Amino acid sequence: MRPVALLTDFGLADHYVGVLHAVLEREAPGARRIDLGHQVPQGDVWAGCFLLRCAWPSLPDDAVVLAVVDPGVGGDRRPVAVRVGGRWLVAPDNGLAAAAGAASEAVTIDWRRMGLPAPSATFHGRDLFAPAAARLARGDDPGTLGERVSPAGLEPCPIPEPVARDRGFHTTVVHVDRFGNLITNLSREVVDYYSQRGEITVRIGSRIIRGIRDRYGQERSGRLLALFGSSGYLEIACNLGSAAEKVGYFPGKVLEVKLRIGKS
Amino acid sequence: MRPVALLTDFGLADHYVGVLHAVLEREAPGARRIDLGHQVPQGDVWAGCFLLRCAWPSLPDDAVVLAVVDPGVGGDRRPVAVRVGGRWLVAPDNGLAAAAGAASEAVTIDWRRMGLPAPSATFHGRDLFAPAAARLARGDDPGTLGERVSPAGLEPCPIPEPVARDRGFHTTVVHVDRFGNLITNLSREVVDYYSQRGEITVRIGSRIIRGIRDRYGQERSGRLLALFGSSGYLEIACNLGSAAEKVGYFPGKVLEVKLRIGKS
Amino acid sequence: MRPVALLTDFGLADHYVGVLHAVLEREAPGARRIDLGHQVPQGDVWAGCFLLRCAWPSLPDDAVVLAVVDPGVGGDRRPVAVRVGGRWLVAPDNGLAAAAGAASEAVTIDWRRMGLPAPSATFHGRDLFAPAAARLARGDDPGTLGERVSPAGLEPCPIPEPVARDRGFHTTVVHVDRFGNLITNLSREVVDYYSQRGEITVRIGSRIIRGIRDRYGQERSGRLLALFGSSGYLEIACNLGSAAEKVGYFPGKVLEVKLRIGKS
Repeated sequence: MRPVALLTDFGLADHYVGVLHAVLEREAPGARRIDLGHQVPQGDVWAGCFLLRCAWPSLPDDAVVLAVVDPGVGGDRRPVAVRVGGRWLVAPDNGLAAAAGAASEAVTIDWRRMGLPAPSATFHGRDLFAPAAARLARGDDPGTLGERVSPAGLEPCPIPEPVARDRGFHTTVVHVDRFGNLITNLSREVVDYYSQRGEITVRIGSRIIRGIRDRYGQERSGRLLALFGSSGYLEIACNLGSAAEKVGYFPGKVLEVKLRIGKS
Repeated sequence: MRPVALLTDFGLADHYVGVLHAVLEREAPGARRIDLGHQVPQGDVWAGCFLLRCAWPSLPDDAVVLAVVDPGVGGDRRPVAVRVGGRWLVAPDNGLAAAAGAASEAVTIDWRRMGLPAPSATFHGRDLFAPAAARLARGDDPGTLGERVSPAGLEPCPIPEPVARDRGFHTTVVHVDRFGNLITNLSREVVDYYSQRGEITVRIGSRIIRGIRDRYGQERSGRLLALFGSSGYLEIACNLGSAAEKVGYFPGKVLEVKLRIGKS
Repeated sequence: MRPVALLTDFGLADHYVGVLHAVLEREAPGARRIDLGHQVPQGDVWAGCFLLRCAWPSLPDDAVVLAVVDPGVGGDRRPVAVRVGGRWLVAPDNGLAAAAGAASEAVTIDWRRMGLPAPSATFHGRDLFAPAAARLARGDDPGTLGERVSPAGLEPCPIPEPVARDRGFHTTVVHVDRFGNLITNLSREVVDYYSQRGEITVRIGSRIIRGIRDRYGQERSGRLLALFGSSGYLEIACNLGSAAEKVGYFPGKVLEVKLRIGKS
């Protein structure tokens, strides 16, 4: 039985997450379950994609991931299951299904093909996604979930990729964590690939940060700093403070971040 | 080993929920555990009953449910375990034990009979309910928990049943979810049983909503609508907004909802 | 496979806790996991120690506890694993590793010795502590984690011990729970040992509380009372109210509590 990891925006106040677990336990008894988080901001597909990417490398190689951030539930976006490496990702085809990287297989999730009752209009997590994840956890043939489709036709992950420009990169804050760290999706690997580790300058709004630190404590208290965080992405932090507060971030605000390598 | 599902109002800030899990793991090692939720509003037996009802149909058929919303802890309400279908529900006899429907068996939970130390005055979850749930999960005879009692003598579930009246039903909001949806306990089955699906009008306070929708998106943004939600109960929602805010709901407020079928 | 219990200050909004679970599942597949809590106030080693102490007696005898409240991550505090009774505690050596009582064995956690990649500067939970806990759960020899060190050299638990004075004890509030109860670390055992259960007076700030109650309901609504809570520690509560509000507590405030036995 494969382990199943869950990521949703359902929150923990209601019974919704518990019901996913109940369905998984009923349909795939004994499959171990991992909660990756249920407090993705409501309907925020970007944040769901980002958290999924951060957790992905730590998962067991044969994990089934059940990810539901689905503002279009009941509409015409497709429910799908995609294979990425040895793992399966079960998610709405709204960009979230593409967050873990290039898929080598994809199938739609079709309740008729699966022999399920007609789903409710508002809780596909319970009625479609969890039953599909349970079957993949049990080792069922993915072809029994629905129709095989081309991975190339999946809705792309909506997080903008960093753009190489001006001897550096233009990127965007994609997640603000509970500590107020402003996290981009510019990875250390990408920076290293293009640079010989020259002098680096990071610009966020009108503020300029010189150099990349290794730890928060390397900057004075209350000062902004840039570092590659634990998931390998460039983040703007504030030692013993909140970078989000410091730069006046509010939910929904688009924050451009520019990184430049070498002398100006 | 039967799976154990947990529902409490303990919140997640302290060690209380973790201790329930620890006791279950110690006393019923290997029993799979499902968190149905721990953020029932503090002492709110109505909300506990409602969430339990919503989750109940999704549970494994042999589940043991440990439900603790117990404002009278340490007083004279009885701790009980009741069998409903193939499942056991372990809960205080304050209405919560009756929330899952008619019981076919019931026993009190008696620490002396179970050979346990005298319970603390404030944490029966740890001292009585979790040990009882663990024994049921292991398959122990329910008679070893305490005295067999008549299910008819259990405190009834406090949520008022909808009343058939005025060519329709009078009911009440019993839960407000994190999205601000106002959920009643009037189920689609009940409405269907009485009606031939004539024209339906829903009245909440002074507001009148015509017709039942299938999805939030079928009403204009910011407008109230009525629909049967994922658990099959009538709810008042607001497309891309909060119905609770829209009608001026505050915790503790009693909101009457009237549904009428056919021409006025 | 030993069960693993987790306690952190990571919160539930991000992917951090999910990643710990993923690493444990990957490195110790099938080890049962217990979440003791992840909402320790950020960086609050006192609160982490206190919650750990409260949960400790309920844990399975062979549990491995992974506790991370680590404001000095990336600095020079040591990551360690210590044996207390039959359990192992994996934690930073910042006082948290000493919270469960006297250790009989201790080892450092050394990524080189364990054959791990160099850890990130900010997420030792994922890179050091969880892999170490997984190995102990699997039953690996603790000597494979790092160097054996003397338990006597561990950083002591920072919570001040109650001081016997003035025919009683001087102590401090060490945790405020979600109900507003002010919890000290003066245990009933200590009080019983020194007293013949004479008349007890508790003083918090300028307020005086006479006698120790058994239950919240034994005092009038809105009145402060003192009782030994479910973990056996003296707490100041307010029946149907919040003692924290009543005495003007705010986070970070040091509240002295004095208990006196016998006639004044």
